Amino acid sequence: MKYGMIATWKMAYEGVVEGSEKLRNGKEVSEAVICAIESVENNPAYRSVGFGGLPNRVGEVELDAAYMDGERLCFGAVMAVKNIKNPIRVARHLSGYQRNNILAGGGAESFAATHGYESANMLTHESQQRWEKKIGEGYIPEEIEAYGGHDTVCIIGLDDQGRMGNGVSTSGLFMKHPGRVGDSPVIGSGFYCDSRVGAASATGVGEDIMKGCLSFRIVSLIKAGGDCQGACEKALFDHEADLKARGSKPGSMSVIAMDKNGNFGGATTQKEFPFVVSREEMEPTIFVAQNDGKVHRVIKATQDWKDNYLGD
Amino acid sequence: MKYGMIATWKMAYEGVVEGSEKLRNGKEVSEAVICAIESVENNPAYRSVGFGGLPNRVGEVELDAAYMDGERLCFGAVMAVKNIKNPIRVARHLSGYQRNNILAGGGAESFAATHGYESANMLTHESQQRWEKKIGEGYIPEEIEAYGGHDTVCIIGLDDQGRMGNGVSTSGLFMKHPGRVGDSPVIGSGFYCDSRVGAASATGVGEDIMKGCLSFRIVSLIKAGGDCQGACEKALFDHEADLKARGSKPGSMSVIAMDKNGNFGGATTQKEFPFVVSREEMEPTIFVAQNDGKVHRVIKATQDWKDNYLGD
Repeated sequence: MKYGMIATWKMAYEGVVEGSEKLRNGKEVSEAVICAIESVENNPAYRSVGFGGLPNRVGEVELDAAYMDGERLCFGAVMAVKNIKNPIRVARHLSGYQRNNILAGGGAESFAATHGYESANMLTHESQQRWEKKIGEGYIPEEIEAYGGHDTVCIIGLDDQGRMGNGVSTSGLFMKHPGRVGDSPVIGSGFYCDSRVGAASATGVGEDIMKGCLSFRIVSLIKAGGDCQGACEKALFDHEADLKARGSKPGSMSVIAMDKNGNFGGATTQKEFPFVVSREEMEPTIFVAQNDGKVHRVIKATQDWKDNYLGD
Repeated sequence: MKYGMIATWKMAYEGVVEGSEKLRNGKEVSEAVICAIESVENNPAYRSVGFGGLPNRVGEVELDAAYMDGERLCFGAVMAVKNIKNPIRVARHLSGYQRNNILAGGGAESFAATHGYESANMLTHESQQRWEKKIGEGYIPEEIEAYGGHDTVCIIGLDDQGRMGNGVSTSGLFMKHPGRVGDSPVIGSGFYCDSRVGAASATGVGEDIMKGCLSFRIVSLIKAGGDCQGACEKALFDHEADLKARGSKPGSMSVIAMDKNGNFGGATTQKEFPFVVSREEMEPTIFVAQNDGKVHRVIKATQDWKDNYLGD
């Protein structure tokens, strides 16, 4: 059995390197995925996840995270939590229970404190300055968009025993309403993972992603015999077309998937969406889904692309 | 075009009578569904929804609610909110936005206050007594179950213009952890509604319902050509069998569905699950899904059944 890992955005690269090393050494998939997500959460340079995340409209960093175990379909999630250093660890902890798998707000924070999870002020000087600047410029609440070039980190892993795991972590939309919950911690939308089939995860404007339950839809297409790339494109573009046909103007949406054999896919409604893949026979590699509104294609990131990429 | 309405549990009966009256008079589906849900929320005799709901383990009534508009796939939800008299109205309000559709905890409460929604202490003397008794008896957090005979109210409506709407409201599992969020306000799990296809909703142990994204799965089966009753049974029993095959012992789960033509279905893993249906040609009528572990069938509730029913 091969191992594999796929993750949203270039910012996940270092995390995928670390997580893949664990998979190469035969570690269990949850350990590899949590390690990889944590690496992104702890890096203040990645402005849309964990420490140094993007504040809500009142200047607080509120975080969402989830973990799903593809063996037993168990999952845990925290929603709209403050001052928790590694929300992904709390989500993973909650996934071990039969009940109370999702905790929101203060209830999640007291759970984390009771169980000894480190608390931290997640607002950095830089993220506060970014918020102050936005307050000064003004913004339209109904048009807030996913933060260009990064956004939610979603990581899917497959270990050498065929076990799959799926973790997500985000600070959500910049200038969101306090308490706003996006797709990331919502099962079926931000993530879905079944070791017998495959897993999928989404990033972008959660409100629009959720209207199509994109992750569950992709895994269902794979279960029905579709390949990962085709499933990602069909689920995403059918949903985008459906929203447009109903008069909506959907925000950006991007998806990734990996099946139980380590095959993978990615798709986006944006001009471009980078994602990172590693497999037994392939070092962590950046791929880019590109969409010019007519043609959608996935390429391996060239040195030229890397040199010119302005996102994280 | 016919109108129709379907709702979980016998407790929804009066609400369905009121909502159906609105549909008969040509009112828009959202008005009928919200009116019907509100009727259940406001009745303290119904212990698992709204006023007089079941407390969490620290004795607070925390509520979840959602509304989805099947025309545009828009939805709104509140999660783990306290002291809001009619959470369904706040969820409906949020469904009108492009962003910030889900609000949890304090953020949702401040939104409700800002927009003039009535606040109320939802804990009645009776619900407090029930909580005190449970604290005295003790309970196993990992085995808390849906409250027998009632639980979440889910109502699907279809108006004479072919528009569909889907509302849900609940106080969630009795003795849940503070901040716990169940399937009810989670799109694809507790509810999903598409006027071009149909809608489905679920009630029971949310943690297990979510593992299978039951509502989205049922609507997908209807979209693929399945009838409502068959789609409810296939989605529910496939998922139950899958969880058991993976070594889980799933809690109770029950589902309802109505398609765009007013056809309906219901299914349960419990011994019995009553639901209420009304259509243009049929006064509000109680049906009962019965499951003895081998045979699943749906009957019209007899007078004898009504006389002996101990739930709400």
